[in-house]
Amino acid sequence: MSGSTFGELFRVTNFGESHGPAIGCVIDGCPPGLELSEADIQPELDRRRPGTSRHVTQRNEPDVVEILSGVYEGKTTGTPICLLIKNTDQRSKDYGNILDTFRPGHADYTYWRKYGLRDPRGGGRSSARLTAPMVGAGAVARKWLHQQYGTTFRGCMTNLGELEIPFEDWKHVPNNPFFAANASKIAELEAYMDELRRAGDSVGARIAVEACGVPVGLGEPLFDKLDADIAYAMMGINAVKGVEIGSGFAVVAQRGSEHGDELTPEGFATNNAGGMLGGISTGQDIRVAIAIKPTSSIRSPKASIDRAGQVATVETFGRHDPCVGIRATPIAEAMLALVLMDHALRHRAQCGDVRHELPPIAASR
Amino acid sequence: MSGSTFGELFRVTNFGESHGPAIGCVIDGCPPGLELSEADIQPELDRRRPGTSRHVTQRNEPDVVEILSGVYEGKTTGTPICLLIKNTDQRSKDYGNILDTFRPGHADYTYWRKYGLRDPRGGGRSSARLTAPMVGAGAVARKWLHQQYGTTFRGCMTNLGELEIPFEDWKHVPNNPFFAANASKIAELEAYMDELRRAGDSVGARIAVEACGVPVGLGEPLFDKLDADIAYAMMGINAVKGVEIGSGFAVVAQRGSEHGDELTPEGFATNNAGGMLGGISTGQDIRVAIAIKPTSSIRSPKASIDRAGQVATVETFGRHDPCVGIRATPIAEAMLALVLMDHALRHRAQCGDVRHELPPIAASR
Amino acid sequence: MSGSTFGELFRVTNFGESHGPAIGCVIDGCPPGLELSEADIQPELDRRRPGTSRHVTQRNEPDVVEILSGVYEGKTTGTPICLLIKNTDQRSKDYGNILDTFRPGHADYTYWRKYGLRDPRGGGRSSARLTAPMVGAGAVARKWLHQQYGTTFRGCMTNLGELEIPFEDWKHVPNNPFFAANASKIAELEAYMDELRRAGDSVGARIAVEACGVPVGLGEPLFDKLDADIAYAMMGINAVKGVEIGSGFAVVAQRGSEHGDELTPEGFATNNAGGMLGGISTGQDIRVAIAIKPTSSIRSPKASIDRAGQVATVETFGRHDPCVGIRATPIAEAMLALVLMDHALRHRAQCGDVRHELPPIAASR
Amino acid sequence: MSGSTFGELFRVTNFGESHGPAIGCVIDGCPPGLELSEADIQPELDRRRPGTSRHVTQRNEPDVVEILSGVYEGKTTGTPICLLIKNTDQRSKDYGNILDTFRPGHADYTYWRKYGLRDPRGGGRSSARLTAPMVGAGAVARKWLHQQYGTTFRGCMTNLGELEIPFEDWKHVPNNPFFAANASKIAELEAYMDELRRAGDSVGARIAVEACGVPVGLGEPLFDKLDADIAYAMMGINAVKGVEIGSGFAVVAQRGSEHGDELTPEGFATNNAGGMLGGISTGQDIRVAIAIKPTSSIRSPKASIDRAGQVATVETFGRHDPCVGIRATPIAEAMLALVLMDHALRHRAQCGDVRHELPPIAASR
Repeated sequence: MSGSTFGELFRVTNFGESHGPAIGCVIDGCPPGLELSEADIQPELDRRRPGTSRHVTQRNEPDVVEILSGVYEGKTTGTPICLLIKNTDQRSKDYGNILDTFRPGHADYTYWRKYGLRDPRGGGRSSARLTAPMVGAGAVARKWLHQQYGTTFRGCMTNLGELEIPFEDWKHVPNNPFFAANASKIAELEAYMDELRRAGDSVGARIAVEACGVPVGLGEPLFDKLDADIAYAMMGINAVKGVEIGSGFAVVAQRGSEHGDELTPEGFATNNAGGMLGGISTGQDIRVAIAIKPTSSIRSPKASIDRAGQVATVETFGRHDPCVGIRATPIAEAMLALVLMDHALRHRAQCGDVRHELPPIAASR
Repeated sequence: MSGSTFGELFRVTNFGESHGPAIGCVIDGCPPGLELSEADIQPELDRRRPGTSRHVTQRNEPDVVEILSGVYEGKTTGTPICLLIKNTDQRSKDYGNILDTFRPGHADYTYWRKYGLRDPRGGGRSSARLTAPMVGAGAVARKWLHQQYGTTFRGCMTNLGELEIPFEDWKHVPNNPFFAANASKIAELEAYMDELRRAGDSVGARIAVEACGVPVGLGEPLFDKLDADIAYAMMGINAVKGVEIGSGFAVVAQRGSEHGDELTPEGFATNNAGGMLGGISTGQDIRVAIAIKPTSSIRSPKASIDRAGQVATVETFGRHDPCVGIRATPIAEAMLALVLMDHALRHRAQCGDVRHELPPIAASR
Repeated sequence: MSGSTFGELFRVTNFGESHGPAIGCVIDGCPPGLELSEADIQPELDRRRPGTSRHVTQRNEPDVVEILSGVYEGKTTGTPICLLIKNTDQRSKDYGNILDTFRPGHADYTYWRKYGLRDPRGGGRSSARLTAPMVGAGAVARKWLHQQYGTTFRGCMTNLGELEIPFEDWKHVPNNPFFAANASKIAELEAYMDELRRAGDSVGARIAVEACGVPVGLGEPLFDKLDADIAYAMMGINAVKGVEIGSGFAVVAQRGSEHGDELTPEGFATNNAGGMLGGISTGQDIRVAIAIKPTSSIRSPKASIDRAGQVATVETFGRHDPCVGIRATPIAEAMLALVLMDHALRHRAQCGDVRHELPPIAASR
Repeated sequence: MSGSTFGELFRVTNFGESHGPAIGCVIDGCPPGLELSEADIQPELDRRRPGTSRHVTQRNEPDVVEILSGVYEGKTTGTPICLLIKNTDQRSKDYGNILDTFRPGHADYTYWRKYGLRDPRGGGRSSARLTAPMVGAGAVARKWLHQQYGTTFRGCMTNLGELEIPFEDWKHVPNNPFFAANASKIAELEAYMDELRRAGDSVGARIAVEACGVPVGLGEPLFDKLDADIAYAMMGINAVKGVEIGSGFAVVAQRGSEHGDELTPEGFATNNAGGMLGGISTGQDIRVAIAIKPTSSIRSPKASIDRAGQVATVETFGRHDPCVGIRATPIAEAMLALVLMDHALRHRAQCGDVRHELPPIAASR
């Protein structure tokens, strides 16, 4: 109830702090018989890992995942899977100056007010580092969903600060440090980032993620609508301030005659809905976008107060991403996978494996 | 687990269908000793009620709420409060033509695929009518939060289709059918709606809601962040396709030097964060905005298919709001109140009533 | 979280008080497509109903159940089923004398201390009358389990006070007011009860219930073991003070060489385990026994205190069962059905409908 | 939902298998500011530890606990506390003969049927070794409850097989390997156990546990009654087949005139109820007893079948407790502490820290 467990039937309980001995999670409810080893998980963690380009934090964490339980002779047993990631690079001295002062844009003030004390080392529990175990758990969900339904996940950055990144092709995404689906724009993005770093400032980003090959019927009315749970998952990622499903905020100015996706015997004609109607998946691609705020830790000084309420100035010199959005794509994909996994099990509980009498139409498009 | 219960400690279980005998909810976990009668709840239901202007559905539902349990001699007893709203206007004949055809933009197709059968009368369970019990439950939450902390809630429409509604003053909101915080713009909005109705079309809207007087420290890391739960609550409202907290999607183009709200001995200097940092309330106003898609039921014909997968055309002649966003403001306020109520109890569970050593500063601004 | 919801996937949320306008429950998570009407539920309520013999309370409640939602054209839709039972016989005047005094053995004192106020009419929320909606929900679970797996439920009284009731045949149970599986002992039981009533006293009972035709594999390690959830369900029934699974407390003096049920190619040779091993169903009959304390409301005076802490005497003259155990059999059967129903859905979520490679042996015996 | 999490607000998620790399748990919801180190936890684990006398398994596990998260500078931070216990003594060869054969009384058959595969090493997930993390979590709960309310826990063995162990004094419990509250009976118990071990057999036991200094008002109507949750917790301990609250099964033959505990201005006169009325704590000592079945792993051969359904014989030669009940006392105490801890937080959520107007009487006796 204190917010460290994600999901209802595929439950991921996250633990750890940025600079403690280890971070990790316990996955309870994974179906038995899934072939699983660290090799299924590590590649996703590597996508999120710091230190991979000059545009992200130079903290050097190998983020090696270890499976402590729930797998026997290479298969999941149906019992809890504990993933452990040891913290190796804990240069706490970098953070000494924030012990008594509340950094603007950070959770320092609210943790201290909520709990009466806080672990200041690297943001403690509020660090984005805690997304790493979720990326690990997401890899397990992705593998099962792919085997069961052929579901796949992908994402890209669509905006870096005021720069728009026109979509060209998904194939570009792994070939640049920004997860941009665009080859020709990369030089401009790099120059933009270099200038930003020189200025000691940071910037926001917009990320789009999709799930393809989604079974029809996932999602619960009234409250655990698939889109509601996706919004919950996305807004829970550090620094996210907005979530859109399908056409998102553009629907405000749309007409009903334009918005409602028509059905044809071959499937839906459009996807303004983003793959869900009434909170339940249509079988179309699920489309989500998120807004990520600029990194709060910047070199430029900002006004704040200390614990005594006295005026103070905060300048942050540690290792920080000038745009936390850069590493957000694999995190958002993982969270989307976790939501779908959970709903796949929930659907199976109530409605069973056997599909209902199906219409003779293609569900997706 | 099938999605009809909202909240963890202040749990609202919703039941009923648009055209069944009754709709309602059971509130479990309400603190004992709160003075409560139907008179505390009915006014909020009246704000959401259909049939109040020519711009909303003419379905004539008085929506009279009845308290069936949990109150003794005018006070809550700490046991479940059942709210019942009988359905009186059930003109099912209006909906006969949608029995076999899937209306574009509606949940017809997904319900049928998920469950193998569906109640087509007025949208059944997927009708926005099911928000009425939540408005009722929200009224209980609002009363308790106001007594306990002085918390208040308010909201307004900021955009109707392509029309922006500049904010003038909260006092205008109750004086027009659009929940607009603006007096001079109403004539234009009315003309716009009249034209839309003549065209047999519909349009989207953007709504902003706020909570004022929020205690510091509500919200849980890592997953049940206050903003994540707000996003979940808002995206679960019928027709919502986007959610923003604080500066929302504008953060994409912001710089860190601009975004991070500075602290002063008198409180925060700005509120880009929308009243939450690290998922925990700062004590500032909580600011949320939502995008609502255009009503899917329109007179203009749209292409679809029937249950046999054959081409069909859908025209809807029933009583429908040309802009479902018009009645969304009290719903969004209620959902926000339910989230805060739940987190107030959750905070109390872990951290107790007694406030921690507090900084000698104003928390809110 | 305030304890009014039973189950995780087949969730029953109970509301109401003994003398309020109505009691009832909301069942969320029922699989769609189950044929259901009041006629499936009423017979189970009638088995539990007061006023059916001179040995139970003469309160005359017809306990007529009404389905308010979740059923369309005779079939469950997968959305919440609200069951409503109106209270008709609310002779509150009978209870006037207990407003200020705490009745020994009752929840008066603890409710008042917990909530700071209480509804004293007929025990309010702590009345055994609140088991009626559970019997109703149990009837839904029984129907689905029977259709899906052929599961059936039965129970009988094995002890009435110091009288043992030797098991003869299940066929006797419906033919006497005690749910005794014995025909020859009835006269003695009736005489015993008549004497007890004349003495103004009450007595305890022991009830045994069974589920037959249970699928193998229900129940979760580590905490939601099937037997743990059964113990929770049974101990939650009013007046229950002990629960046994299989050989129960007799295992204390058993040897391992005697206790462990041997397996043969035709199935298990014995059933000391009561149908569960490691908390998971074996496919054998599930066997449970419960101890029910004597009715606390008796005519004989007992010492107590009033709200001011002053000495008081309590004599109860209302309509009360001299042995609450007499009507407990259908309640215990219903609760057992609800536990199995919930675990059937939970099993399906994680392990799917498809059965694993099965051993070529009979599972049950 | 797969049963590895215990509690609602003080949530303990357990992971690991008997012979995997490690076992442990994640505690979420612990109040912040509690002084905590391994030294608070290790002593409780040592009480449960194997290898401490010739009457328990000689498996030599030091069971050293490590705190991986949730504690900063010696105090809990309010974020998840991960406890890790590495498995050091994993002599898997002892268990080779049970790979294909289902041991009578064990979970081998049910795990295999449920999951389609199982980890056979030392019982895998079904091993009683998984109670160790719960004893660890229980130590945290005990410390907080003691600081907050002065609550303490104690327990003893009351029956070893057919031998009754008359209660003399709590002070004897730590001075003998049986947790017997009796000094003069120890020699007889030791001789009994030696003979049993020579015979290659095992025996059951009865354990009583108590909580003293319990606040009034813990426990929820209707389903999460304090006694229902205690029954759930106790029946979830490996090998438990019966649970009694207060007078337990003796209530069957009691009269109402005898059973109902009278109140006096100085407190309750008796404690037949075991410290709860209507599922809510009275402030009296909470009294619970459990029946533990004889160890299933015995040297004497038993008939069974193998995975092909063929007749097989099982003899177990590994290191096993001839009476698993011997080490059950600290486990039962820990589970009782976890239930009370959870309900203390739940009570605080709904009813707040501030006590209601209290009667001028002593609550407990």
